[in-house]
Amino acid sequence: MSGRTARRRVLRVTVPAEGTPGGATARADLLAAEEPLGIRADGAALTMTMRTPGDDIELAAGFLVSEAMVRSPGDIVEIKLCDGTSCGHGDHDGLGNIADVSLAPGVAIAPGARRNFMTTSACGVCGKTSIEDICVLPQAALSADETIFSPQVLAALPDRLREAQRVFASTGGLHAAGLFTSSGELIAIREDVGRHNAVDKLVGWAFLDGRLPLTGCALLVSGRASFELVQKAVLAGIPLLAAVSAPSSLAADLAEEAGLTLVGFLRGQSMNVYTGAHRIVA
Amino acid sequence: MSGRTARRRVLRVTVPAEGTPGGATARADLLAAEEPLGIRADGAALTMTMRTPGDDIELAAGFLVSEAMVRSPGDIVEIKLCDGTSCGHGDHDGLGNIADVSLAPGVAIAPGARRNFMTTSACGVCGKTSIEDICVLPQAALSADETIFSPQVLAALPDRLREAQRVFASTGGLHAAGLFTSSGELIAIREDVGRHNAVDKLVGWAFLDGRLPLTGCALLVSGRASFELVQKAVLAGIPLLAAVSAPSSLAADLAEEAGLTLVGFLRGQSMNVYTGAHRIVA
Repeated sequence: MSGRTARRRVLRVTVPAEGTPGGATARADLLAAEEPLGIRADGAALTMTMRTPGDDIELAAGFLVSEAMVRSPGDIVEIKLCDGTSCGHGDHDGLGNIADVSLAPGVAIAPGARRNFMTTSACGVCGKTSIEDICVLPQAALSADETIFSPQVLAALPDRLREAQRVFASTGGLHAAGLFTSSGELIAIREDVGRHNAVDKLVGWAFLDGRLPLTGCALLVSGRASFELVQKAVLAGIPLLAAVSAPSSLAADLAEEAGLTLVGFLRGQSMNVYTGAHRIVA
Repeated sequence: MSGRTARRRVLRVTVPAEGTPGGATARADLLAAEEPLGIRADGAALTMTMRTPGDDIELAAGFLVSEAMVRSPGDIVEIKLCDGTSCGHGDHDGLGNIADVSLAPGVAIAPGARRNFMTTSACGVCGKTSIEDICVLPQAALSADETIFSPQVLAALPDRLREAQRVFASTGGLHAAGLFTSSGELIAIREDVGRHNAVDKLVGWAFLDGRLPLTGCALLVSGRASFELVQKAVLAGIPLLAAVSAPSSLAADLAEEAGLTLVGFLRGQSMNVYTGAHRIVA
């Protein structure tokens, strides 16, 4: 496994302005690493995602949860990371980065659910073959989760997420997903070049730790809230998804249908509540 | 085709602070629209992407260019938008949003190139079945493009892009891609919830207008520079890709290999030049 960051020589160029001469200086810079990870289940390729190396076992587990392929930690016997030369599949290339999942006997991935495709760093609903597929909402019932979140607690979350983002500070290039209690305590944080990978890593960690469904928790993402992130939150049983930036129209539509509380533009002392406002009490 | 934005009722919540009472007020808000678009060629499903409606014909054309499936405007006879009920394919669902491409006789998409998958709003290298596939660099030779870009001109581009982003101002939720001359004039701009879609729309417009390769041009994207955006720029023959935010390590690696000038953190009066610094002259 490679590192989460990569060092690279960069030319820092400044435009001359009044009082400053401008110029160009070479220096070392840290970039967020982006590399492919292939995910296989019982030897069959499920997906390939462009991700930041690290927490790859959690990422693989979270992907299976987000696809509704597994439901309890016992559904997975083992997840092995291999470089493509040691795991018995002859068709890997030298790049490696394969997560090999062994499913429990009786846990079979339905052929229709299998996606023969590759996701990228910001991709999460790839591979389905009809438009209808992506609109199938997960069966989880969030409406029974009556947790209340106060605006004060929510407003404090972005700063806590940022403080916890160790890698972001060095590269400026990573999305973060943070899981919080309803009183604002950080439970866990994961980072990735892709928003959906950061959430998959977080959900995969909770899944492997036997914590699903994440009743009573809030999920905060550093960027925008898309359709796919709403879907992942719902499948993990999280009642509230908050984003620092804007949600899309489809994200709001699906959040409403699933009974998820969707908060956007969570900045400073204010926020927009798009759906499920009954969980927010001033 | 639906609109680029969707109006939605939102609860604006403000935390009480010293001197301000806080509270919650309902108001109408504009969200960036996100809807699936299926792309078909000669009746076969190629991909599905979560995109902001608008410029869909250009998006379909740009996707084919970015996949190296077509090389000149004559390779495409027609691109029709249909709602799934009128174009003769019985397997569409009611959601519609299909771009049906008719290829010229003799232009066949190689079976290996066909991706049976779905891309999302921020996804662009989906569907390949081996890790090696994504590392195949396009055959375009950018190194012959000796255009020079001055730091002064580059530093002015983000403001010009922002001024041109009409939709962004209303939703805060759209990525933009702008094509500029080496003297900083805006040639065209496209927006989308997905970074890669914004670039596909731009490249598709240039392709249909007979402007490829885009020798001497600069491409500016409003977000980060990922691997896939580098690949799209190279395939369109664009010698310089600039991003307001950070590039990933793989983006820099591929830019170097392809001879692309990659600029990141283009903000205020400075920028980081990761590769191809010979095109930047102070």
